[in-house]
Amino acid sequence: MSKMKVTILGCGSALPTEKHFNSSQVLNIGEKLFMIDCGEGAQIRLRQLKIKTSKLNHIFISHLHGDHCFGLIGFISTLGMLGRKENLYIYAHADLEKILQPQIDYFCQEMPYRVIFNHINPRANEVIFEDRTIRVTTIPLKHAIPTCGFLFEEKEKERHLIREKINFFKVPVRQLHLLKKGADFVCPDGKIIPNSQLTKAGEPAKKYAYCSDTAYFEKVIPIIQGADCLFHEATFTEKETIRAKETFHSTAKQAAEIALKAQVKKLLIGHYSARYRNYETILAEAKSVFEDTFATEDGNIFEI
Amino acid sequence: MSKMKVTILGCGSALPTEKHFNSSQVLNIGEKLFMIDCGEGAQIRLRQLKIKTSKLNHIFISHLHGDHCFGLIGFISTLGMLGRKENLYIYAHADLEKILQPQIDYFCQEMPYRVIFNHINPRANEVIFEDRTIRVTTIPLKHAIPTCGFLFEEKEKERHLIREKINFFKVPVRQLHLLKKGADFVCPDGKIIPNSQLTKAGEPAKKYAYCSDTAYFEKVIPIIQGADCLFHEATFTEKETIRAKETFHSTAKQAAEIALKAQVKKLLIGHYSARYRNYETILAEAKSVFEDTFATEDGNIFEI
Repeated sequence: MSKMKVTILGCGSALPTEKHFNSSQVLNIGEKLFMIDCGEGAQIRLRQLKIKTSKLNHIFISHLHGDHCFGLIGFISTLGMLGRKENLYIYAHADLEKILQPQIDYFCQEMPYRVIFNHINPRANEVIFEDRTIRVTTIPLKHAIPTCGFLFEEKEKERHLIREKINFFKVPVRQLHLLKKGADFVCPDGKIIPNSQLTKAGEPAKKYAYCSDTAYFEKVIPIIQGADCLFHEATFTEKETIRAKETFHSTAKQAAEIALKAQVKKLLIGHYSARYRNYETILAEAKSVFEDTFATEDGNIFEI
Repeated sequence: MSKMKVTILGCGSALPTEKHFNSSQVLNIGEKLFMIDCGEGAQIRLRQLKIKTSKLNHIFISHLHGDHCFGLIGFISTLGMLGRKENLYIYAHADLEKILQPQIDYFCQEMPYRVIFNHINPRANEVIFEDRTIRVTTIPLKHAIPTCGFLFEEKEKERHLIREKINFFKVPVRQLHLLKKGADFVCPDGKIIPNSQLTKAGEPAKKYAYCSDTAYFEKVIPIIQGADCLFHEATFTEKETIRAKETFHSTAKQAAEIALKAQVKKLLIGHYSARYRNYETILAEAKSVFEDTFATEDGNIFEI
């Protein structure tokens, strides 16, 4: 059974609070780790949560507001001190490299690994990362500066062989990988055994969507349609709907409307304004629209 | 009674740990606040400890290793969002301005206050800040890069008037400020009343010295002589004496030797290597040389 889970390193918004650091998450897909945003203190949360960084090779930055990237220089510096050798890939707006590289050059001399910047276009919906099993796509969002979310998708998984049928039809070993991909089997006598008799469906490929920071923006709906889990910012309660619009943020209810319309399976909310001391109202407002909503807290882990 | 106290925001060294953030302290002298170093997460600690920043106008940076300054940009940005109007003065090596100003320009647009950099020479022992009641002096240290500590001194305090004597000799009001400064009083008939009959000594002026990061370095001794409190880094135990020397850090025992030779009244140690899980050995080794030693923890407050 493949596993996907997300750990919340920080669920606060612009101002960190006593309990909530700035935005950062780590998505674990079959033990490959992907960091999403990197607010101040992200490395401290990683340490507190005992998350190993050896499998963390890719960092995705939604936009260049400080609360989403001020933790990068400290984290990069620490990885160097810990002796990291593998490249670290950062996917972000081109400006990040201009701002961060001089800091790396100054503070991280003799660093034993390389930081490689991949410039992304936050206005496009396109694939920015892909390997054998995973694909990451940008989700254009509506914010005060160029911003995108990220859709993490597992690629379609191989079908499972039904061992007794394989043996019965004497399928040669060298053909098994084709069957796993869905091919039928042609017997030596020309008879065709349909794939459905030889295999069972693999686990469903999972999808995690991250949408922060953004105003209510329906254009994300087709992109995140049917996601197993959506993280959507919910900076404000209904009472602050006007302020949400002015600042290009969402209310909890708006986050839930996006979840509902996109028919996602689960909604995580966060990026709460520092004005709120507890999240009962925010959560209740979201749940009134979309029942399967969870209010994140720093350190929470959600199975997807 | 004047008050001086120091709050430890972070007592870790290069690598933050679960409990210890990177270096940062806030010194409170009669409700004026001075920040010393600003490692990542300093603003989070300020928030957790409910320290108000309206009286914090001066930040002193010992040197440009990341664990002593990566928290600046987040803190500066947050102060802007909180609507600060007053100038913020940063005292640091000239390179800090080159590194930090482009970040401020990019991330803190429309900031309602100014950050003013005062370039200091870490190799000199000189006054870098002075107001009516306080003086701050650099303390050259011995580290891998140019580094200085800081000596915070209250200026000599005014003498207290002995009210019944003032009345008895009918000292005119306009002469009282001279008496507070130590002047004798000349009666209308020419008779001289010595100051010691008219006033009592004021509270003793206090001194706090901060020495981090540094190898064992006896040249600091005359500068910090007799300080009421010394913070001295103690990165390592005795066992790591060679490593301490190689990395330009101190052992706890060396910190205590400096305290002993400088005849300070109290020693605070910190900047512990992340390799240590507890500080019993470090504290015991320091105490074997200098009894009045305290092992700092994040959030501790020490009266001086």
